[in-house]
Amino acid sequence: MIQIHLTSPIGTAISVAVENAASILPTVRQYGKLGYTSGEVPSGGHSLPLANADDFDFALIGAHPYINKEGEACIMHRGQSYKRRELEAVENKKMSLPKIVKYSRGARPTDLPHVKEGEDGGIQYVTLLTFRGGGKKLTAYALNAVQQNAAD
Amino acid sequence: MIQIHLTSPIGTAISVAVENAASILPTVRQYGKLGYTSGEVPSGGHSLPLANADDFDFALIGAHPYINKEGEACIMHRGQSYKRRELEAVENKKMSLPKIVKYSRGARPTDLPHVKEGEDGGIQYVTLLTFRGGGKKLTAYALNAVQQNAAD
Amino acid sequence: MIQIHLTSPIGTAISVAVENAASILPTVRQYGKLGYTSGEVPSGGHSLPLANADDFDFALIGAHPYINKEGEACIMHRGQSYKRRELEAVENKKMSLPKIVKYSRGARPTDLPHVKEGEDGGIQYVTLLTFRGGGKKLTAYALNAVQQNAAD
Amino acid sequence: MIQIHLTSPIGTAISVAVENAASILPTVRQYGKLGYTSGEVPSGGHSLPLANADDFDFALIGAHPYINKEGEACIMHRGQSYKRRELEAVENKKMSLPKIVKYSRGARPTDLPHVKEGEDGGIQYVTLLTFRGGGKKLTAYALNAVQQNAAD
Amino acid sequence: MIQIHLTSPIGTAISVAVENAASILPTVRQYGKLGYTSGEVPSGGHSLPLANADDFDFALIGAHPYINKEGEACIMHRGQSYKRRELEAVENKKMSLPKIVKYSRGARPTDLPHVKEGEDGGIQYVTLLTFRGGGKKLTAYALNAVQQNAAD
Repeated sequence: MIQIHLTSPIGTAISVAVENAASILPTVRQYGKLGYTSGEVPSGGHSLPLANADDFDFALIGAHPYINKEGEACIMHRGQSYKRRELEAVENKKMSLPKIVKYSRGARPTDLPHVKEGEDGGIQYVTLLTFRGGGKKLTAYALNAVQQNAAD
Repeated sequence: MIQIHLTSPIGTAISVAVENAASILPTVRQYGKLGYTSGEVPSGGHSLPLANADDFDFALIGAHPYINKEGEACIMHRGQSYKRRELEAVENKKMSLPKIVKYSRGARPTDLPHVKEGEDGGIQYVTLLTFRGGGKKLTAYALNAVQQNAAD
Repeated sequence: MIQIHLTSPIGTAISVAVENAASILPTVRQYGKLGYTSGEVPSGGHSLPLANADDFDFALIGAHPYINKEGEACIMHRGQSYKRRELEAVENKKMSLPKIVKYSRGARPTDLPHVKEGEDGGIQYVTLLTFRGGGKKLTAYALNAVQQNAAD
Repeated sequence: MIQIHLTSPIGTAISVAVENAASILPTVRQYGKLGYTSGEVPSGGHSLPLANADDFDFALIGAHPYINKEGEACIMHRGQSYKRRELEAVENKKMSLPKIVKYSRGARPTDLPHVKEGEDGGIQYVTLLTFRGGGKKLTAYALNAVQQNAAD
Repeated sequence: MIQIHLTSPIGTAISVAVENAASILPTVRQYGKLGYTSGEVPSGGHSLPLANADDFDFALIGAHPYINKEGEACIMHRGQSYKRRELEAVENKKMSLPKIVKYSRGARPTDLPHVKEGEDGGIQYVTLLTFRGGGKKLTAYALNAVQQNAAD
């Protein structure tokens, strides 16, 4: 037996039992579509390979994508909106920065100090999710992933 | 099997097992009427769609509504009182602010710094719950909701 | 099945399974007499109705009452001693303060800043439990309470 | 059924199920000898009656005693060494301090501020365990304790 | 029954049930190879005997070793890269420092203050794992360890 620990949109903490590892991701997706999340967002946000950026299933973190009035790609997560930002690769004599795709929002007064990025006193933001680095794509996390055993 | 993790009015932490997802909300309501809460209030408070503001079942967060001596709508939550405040929509040339309904209280010395809102040194308050935004009403959270599967 | 999450006097974290809600309070009392506590003390301490002040069963929070050498009513909780203090009601033109019964101790250097009350630099104290307000007595928490279902 | 929540020497979090309360302490000892600990060390350290100081079974907190090169009594706990210190009773006109036995170590830069004791800027230390006060000996915690029910 | 508490690469919190203590380490390795971690990294990082430095199985903490472009030994852990550093023993009249092997990375703005080591304002780093001291080798944690009971 495996338990999956989840938090509902109004904060109710539950643990859902599933038969085996193959049921972990489908169950997380099912609840995630309803806004249930699992665990804590680490300080600085989640980090996944860049190869996952284009078809990541946001239901896996209890978020859903939408387009705002300005036509920007966003995701809604626990009642807060995060904008997609693409930082193109920089490759010159001075520096070498790889491409990054991230979802972030402006900081709020009630955010904990260490989750805020950017100059203190200046504009600060909070990152939920960053896709970066040449790591192998985690295909199980794709939107149209064939069911597969989370522990295979 | 699903476990629901709850905290009693004197802080006892329990996990109640229920058969299936359909039993989550009725069980949370049953215990919530007795003051049991689940999980942590996120910094800045819970956030729900504005459409839920008028018939939200406060038992779902272990709170109960009452009218204070001054005739104001309040809720009692873990021994503390929060007042209902309605911030009407502002729509003019300078700004566009949507309507918000929130439940907040004055800050106390023992509140953690990051949950306090408002000027440091000035009047500060703590928000338990905010209803805002045009999101679809979560009908399962209404006072007279027909029982429905939390994971449907 | 219901699990009750407890911490022993030397910090061992356990979860005790009981058959039903009727067994929650008797089990908490049984372990509480041995110094087991459950959950965290909230910042500012627990809050209960004033009507519970005179026959509250301290075993429910893993504490036990005793009289110190000076003849003062105290409780011992996780190796620390808290004194009973009664703040009588004040009712005059300037202010209206209700009666409060609280259990508090002097602050220690290793207490977290936000649990300390009183002037910074002056005398500071930490509150474990406050009885206040006109809320209905929670009879299940009384010393001689007839067994009753925690979820009734 | 009772679950005991433990953390391995490399941080793996497990829950071990035992049949009844009589199995709690033997199981904690068995895993504790391998360096498994349970729960968190409270800020300021654990507190036990002075009567437990001389035959406390350190396996109960995942520690083991040893003598260092200087011939001093120490315990090793989660990869850190704590020295035994005896503070003799002081009984004179000015003050009355009871005897204390404690296990502490010098503070490290990565210790959280509130667990450090002593002058800020001066020598600071961290206490794991203090034996103090005239409380009754908890015989179940002794090295050669006859097995007994943790909840008796 | 024993539950192992794990966190997936996107933060999903699960508990996997195994039959007995002999299954703990194989299960942690199996999930660890997929990037699942367990528990929290303690402030200052994990600490293991120096004797474990050369064949430690990083899957046990959800990390995997690799060689970076500069040819340096690194491990990847929760989307962040840590470099292996060897601090040779120093043995002279002034001081006596034992050999240490550690895995650390440069500090980030979103790291909590107390996990950062080094001068404030200067170069700061975060340690994930340190091998130090003459403790006996924990052979169960080696890469090619014969399966053995975690509680033997």
